[in-house]
Amino acid sequence: MQLLGKRWTGLILYQLLSGPQRFSEIESALPISGRLLSERLKDLEKEGLVNRQVYPDVPVRVEYSLTEKGKALEPVIKEIQLWADQWIEFDNKA
Amino acid sequence: MQLLGKRWTGLILYQLLSGPQRFSEIESALPISGRLLSERLKDLEKEGLVNRQVYPDVPVRVEYSLTEKGKALEPVIKEIQLWADQWIEFDNKA
Repeated sequence: MQLLGKRWTGLILYQLLSGPQRFSEIESALPISGRLLSERLKDLEKEGLVNRQVYPDVPVRVEYSLTEKGKALEPVIKEIQLWADQWIEFDNKA
Repeated sequence: MQLLGKRWTGLILYQLLSGPQRFSEIESALPISGRLLSERLKDLEKEGLVNRQVYPDVPVRVEYSLTEKGKALEPVIKEIQLWADQWIEFDNKA
């Protein structure tokens, strides 16, 4: 469960809510280094939240997608975002 | 935001959803050491999620309660719990 609090995990999950994506697509969508993104994706895979699919194209194609367990986090991610929009925004202006 | 992922934070917030409580009440409700509970409460106070109220009784009485910002996390905590009930439970039996 601590994984959910790790920096970038929520944003990576949120990014994958819009469907399977390649590493480069996720990397370009988020202000995160390739090394850290790769580390977080491995964590998420180990926790059974993300699935890594390798396609034998030439060159080989690798796609990441949410598992059922990962997709089930959608309400959590959305509530965190609603809360952050209201309270984190408020803190910056205060 | 990483604070939400830290071990015990969610359970402390969940515990305080039922209203203001003294340190000893929180400590007895959760399998957590006094030192760690005190550390987490300080973190939560710094983030503006928890309020620490000192009453000038004899002996002095200290109560912890959720701020508005803390209470606004209720939907997040409830969704995490729903998810954990379904998926974390499932993992243990598999």
